[in-house]
Amino acid sequence: MGPEIVREAQQMQRLATRHRRKGRRIAVVPTMGALHEGHRALIREGRRRSDVLVVTIFVNPAQFAPHEDLARYPRTFDADLSMCRDEGVDFVFAPSDETMYPPGYGTYVTVEDLSKGLCGKSRPTHFRGVATVVTKLFLLTQPDAAIFGWKDAQQLVIIRRMARDLHIPVEIVPVETVRDADGLALSSRNKYLSPEERAEAPVLCRSLQNARMLIEKEDIRDTAVLRRAITGQIERESKGRIDYVEIVSLQTLEPLAQIARDNTLIALACYWGSTRLIDNIRV
Amino acid sequence: MGPEIVREAQQMQRLATRHRRKGRRIAVVPTMGALHEGHRALIREGRRRSDVLVVTIFVNPAQFAPHEDLARYPRTFDADLSMCRDEGVDFVFAPSDETMYPPGYGTYVTVEDLSKGLCGKSRPTHFRGVATVVTKLFLLTQPDAAIFGWKDAQQLVIIRRMARDLHIPVEIVPVETVRDADGLALSSRNKYLSPEERAEAPVLCRSLQNARMLIEKEDIRDTAVLRRAITGQIERESKGRIDYVEIVSLQTLEPLAQIARDNTLIALACYWGSTRLIDNIRV
Repeated sequence: MGPEIVREAQQMQRLATRHRRKGRRIAVVPTMGALHEGHRALIREGRRRSDVLVVTIFVNPAQFAPHEDLARYPRTFDADLSMCRDEGVDFVFAPSDETMYPPGYGTYVTVEDLSKGLCGKSRPTHFRGVATVVTKLFLLTQPDAAIFGWKDAQQLVIIRRMARDLHIPVEIVPVETVRDADGLALSSRNKYLSPEERAEAPVLCRSLQNARMLIEKEDIRDTAVLRRAITGQIERESKGRIDYVEIVSLQTLEPLAQIARDNTLIALACYWGSTRLIDNIRV
Repeated sequence: MGPEIVREAQQMQRLATRHRRKGRRIAVVPTMGALHEGHRALIREGRRRSDVLVVTIFVNPAQFAPHEDLARYPRTFDADLSMCRDEGVDFVFAPSDETMYPPGYGTYVTVEDLSKGLCGKSRPTHFRGVATVVTKLFLLTQPDAAIFGWKDAQQLVIIRRMARDLHIPVEIVPVETVRDADGLALSSRNKYLSPEERAEAPVLCRSLQNARMLIEKEDIRDTAVLRRAITGQIERESKGRIDYVEIVSLQTLEPLAQIARDNTLIALACYWGSTRLIDNIRV
């Protein structure tokens, strides 16, 4: 017996309300499907923290710009369902576009400041789409805990702020990035890479690890020096086209001149062809 | 024994959660205080529909533009509390700015399209502030029903859309505008009027009633003709400076060329000095 598949928003809300009334602890793992081992780690964290575990699978049109990869984003529903079954998920909420964005839809949630830098520069409406759909998913699934990966660090920081600001009573639980053996952060978009691009992409992780080494072993704290080291390595060791390399405060996502102990995010985005990959570390 | 006064957001949410768990029906009446007989009608409607009635009193800075009347907006907390006591209100939620907008606050709810016309033209950030604070108040007070006046028709339409779009499980209950004997719609801002201005202001209501008569008795359906009749009367009979006179769809708030039976809102705003009054009718 696998998870119950729920397609309709109000039905999801009714089910969640019923379980909450019975005092059961709900966790939600919001995903766009195309589940990989990174998602499995989120699902397992959710399973540990809940009586009722909901995985949402929704390729959210509101977080894609017109020129982005909405249409070709990988959709692997049967395999996703199989992973959810293996991990003991109770509900898979896989709504239609129509039930999430019915005719006349017009309400959006924005988290100012935090959404402007990093990925927000090249994707100016992306985090509005994310904050909107996550608000909606939280109101539909009524979770005690919601599980997000550090891989999407800016998203995590934005959603934590949004939940606090809107008084959504949910604990945002972060989970460490899962990586392939060569260090590449798992991402549904890795499927887009050619074999040559796939061979180059681990330079992102290596450049971040080298930056960590420069900070911890050589006590380099000047972020301009560190950014040059990272961009230099990516440029030397790959044909990737850098979108950004930023060193920011984990709280405000504002650029730092000097590394701040326990409060620093080093984040980057890089293109191979039209495939955009992101990675980050916290130091 | 009067209502319990709650000042802190999380405390309000805890109280509401406790009552919901016991299966009690909660109604909320969101206000900015300076309560008048219009608010009393909202409170009575809320009382009829609930086991637990919450009146919120919060002069929401996010819905005032810098040049608007936030600082001088009337604050009459003791009298407000007295009315709440008389009407059997259970909780008065009167939060501080700090508990609603703590440091680092950055999350806003917008309802596109509906917020652009009518009052949105002269107050471009107003409805963003309204939608944001009402979302927050709904999440804090967890109401089954929320009571709003037709006086603020655009607000009512926007909040209904917002609640639907975000899946907030609350019934939005509208209540008819309460008027003085001479027809002036009750408003906390009427206090700003000089005696001469107060004597002129009922022209708003009269012009709307005349428009209704032209529609119902003379079957005039051309909205350009009706708008000219309304603006002409206001200009002839007062020194008020018209902000807008619009005839729009009640669903989309988009301008209509012809009156649509049961789906038409005639709304206007007019200044006397710096005091801006609004009124409307549905036809």
